[in-house]
Amino acid sequence: MLPEPIQRSIDLFARLPGIGPKTAARLVFYLLRTRESGLSEKLGEAMAALMEGTETCPVCFNMMSTGKETCRICADQNRDRHLICVVEEPLDVPALERTSGYQGVYHVLQGALSPVEGVTPDDLKISELIQRLKEEEVKEVILATNPSMEGDATAMYLQGQLSGMDLKVTRLARGLPMGGDLEYADQHTLLRALMGRQEMD
Amino acid sequence: MLPEPIQRSIDLFARLPGIGPKTAARLVFYLLRTRESGLSEKLGEAMAALMEGTETCPVCFNMMSTGKETCRICADQNRDRHLICVVEEPLDVPALERTSGYQGVYHVLQGALSPVEGVTPDDLKISELIQRLKEEEVKEVILATNPSMEGDATAMYLQGQLSGMDLKVTRLARGLPMGGDLEYADQHTLLRALMGRQEMD
Repeated sequence: MLPEPIQRSIDLFARLPGIGPKTAARLVFYLLRTRESGLSEKLGEAMAALMEGTETCPVCFNMMSTGKETCRICADQNRDRHLICVVEEPLDVPALERTSGYQGVYHVLQGALSPVEGVTPDDLKISELIQRLKEEEVKEVILATNPSMEGDATAMYLQGQLSGMDLKVTRLARGLPMGGDLEYADQHTLLRALMGRQEMD
Repeated sequence: MLPEPIQRSIDLFARLPGIGPKTAARLVFYLLRTRESGLSEKLGEAMAALMEGTETCPVCFNMMSTGKETCRICADQNRDRHLICVVEEPLDVPALERTSGYQGVYHVLQGALSPVEGVTPDDLKISELIQRLKEEEVKEVILATNPSMEGDATAMYLQGQLSGMDLKVTRLARGLPMGGDLEYADQHTLLRALMGRQEMD
């Protein structure tokens, strides 16, 4: 019913996570309504450049610009190479960077173990991590997988794999989120906050 | 902090309505994670084709494929040209078409009157509608603007403009939405439903 270029754009937008056909239509018609802005053409160029312009860092498997030897963080001489923070996804890296509280390097697993979705250790960058730990002088590995079933399973598996190695294995603290309200915390979070309680200085 | 092609894509996605920087990042990293699907490249092509491939119908100002004389509905000889349904946006046309209850043609105003946003009658396709009504033999104009302040203001203004003409001016019924619950209907909707009550056959 709609002109083909419009319907095709809607169908493609609707393949993105969290965007249904109605939202997709709204986005496409927004682009049509504001065509003077050139946003559609710019998005088109950016989408084309996105894949050509990026690849995974051969060291930590974070995203990096194509043609570089490693990602910016691996290339940064000020980062502490004795400390590796293991995360599931590339998007977890900017989240941790925004804290300004971490000066080590990263290792992106590119997923988490999930029997339901058929994700096994071989699908993740785990052997690459172990290789890296053998070759580099690492003192601590921070397991920063998600606080979910899959994330926990991945952390447990990694803990087992790393147990024989001469390094400290830590994981992110669980507890009440900042700015939250104790009354509204779910029981699992609250239990973790209780179990992880710390003496006040 | 992120590679330039990624940051640029995030910034552009975040300019779309209802998509904030976090959602934009999630969408871009989804494209990166599923790069084998080619979705990013397809979206790029579709975005480029979207503007080149579409223009507004010179008769009703609905969207149509570039190079056609008029849109599909205006070109359809089975549509009743005595009946014009006036809507605000092109997206309103497929919504009405989905009802399968309308066989007339359309006129897309391309917006609604809004003193706040500085939208005046000259910004809408109102003079084009009046010209059309003078040239064509139209029996009824259905004002199908949104049930909002702007939509109502636009309908009122159009009613004034069309008052001298030899045609019937109608508007869409207000009332309880289908599948809704009377208990949860807002007072304005319920008042309209009361005022517009109809005798049962």
